[in-house]
Amino acid sequence: MLAVLRLSHRIFRDKRISTHLVLTARAFGADEFYYTGEHDAHLEDSVEKICTEWGGKICTEHIKNPWNFIEKWKKSGGTVVHLTMYGIDLSDKLVELKTKENLLVVVGGVKVPGMIYDLTDYNIAIGNQPHSEVAALAVFLDQISDSLARKKKFKNAKKVITPSEVGKAMEKIG
Amino acid sequence: MLAVLRLSHRIFRDKRISTHLVLTARAFGADEFYYTGEHDAHLEDSVEKICTEWGGKICTEHIKNPWNFIEKWKKSGGTVVHLTMYGIDLSDKLVELKTKENLLVVVGGVKVPGMIYDLTDYNIAIGNQPHSEVAALAVFLDQISDSLARKKKFKNAKKVITPSEVGKAMEKIG
Repeated sequence: MLAVLRLSHRIFRDKRISTHLVLTARAFGADEFYYTGEHDAHLEDSVEKICTEWGGKICTEHIKNPWNFIEKWKKSGGTVVHLTMYGIDLSDKLVELKTKENLLVVVGGVKVPGMIYDLTDYNIAIGNQPHSEVAALAVFLDQISDSLARKKKFKNAKKVITPSEVGKAMEKIG
Repeated sequence: MLAVLRLSHRIFRDKRISTHLVLTARAFGADEFYYTGEHDAHLEDSVEKICTEWGGKICTEHIKNPWNFIEKWKKSGGTVVHLTMYGIDLSDKLVELKTKENLLVVVGGVKVPGMIYDLTDYNIAIGNQPHSEVAALAVFLDQISDSLARKKKFKNAKKVITPSEVGKAMEKIG
């Protein structure tokens, strides 16, 4: 099980960033996407629409309390990784993290509470410079799957791309 | 030289995505960031501010005509890579791309004109699923540098993070 938890979503300001996060989660192999902050039916609908067209399924769910959620995840034997520019570099823990079976990847929104740093099992940086939670999530998920997750086929897809060096080739099914 | 060209920036809709793109470009080793679409002084200012605080320099410049720019880049011996979900996977060209010295990485905005697919030297996919131009750029830049670019130190930084397993450690200089 591979899940992503996005903290503190704000409908107006974060709409596109959170959409990019959930699409990145789906495309790079996550099974579930949770978010705290404001409940956003539009975000959930747009993910549903992508799954209808492009296949697969990623469970997208709003949760109220990240602390309880993270603690529950750990109690059931799972591992929690927080992506933060203050953490130690992914390269230092990559081999270890690849062995974890139930991984929850936490990505911050505005002002991540200090408690998150203590609660999670790992604070991992994708470089120690300010950049983007979308960038951090993508590189993290890609590396823990050795770039394999992004190449998998999705079930029940109505649109399938044939990779090509020039132009666009897409098959529409059904 | 490693540069990024972001197409069709729209001040209102793309403000945060384009900011994430330029910060990702900087953090993963790009020297220059160009963009077409609407000229956005605020975007340029926010990058300037990040460089003042976190060091280094990434030239950020608005350009009017991407076709001329891409053709000029190629004529001067450079290589142009377009990141697109329709392309062939990065893994298939990674070794070849690592040998290129002057690389321009083009990332799309809304509706990339078909001409871009023909003009560029490579159409490269980071997976053939819809996700995010920020995700695609991050994985691309990270992989062509073997994850080394994101670990480099920036010159003249006023803020420097000491990577740590727990909490936040940042040194303020000057």
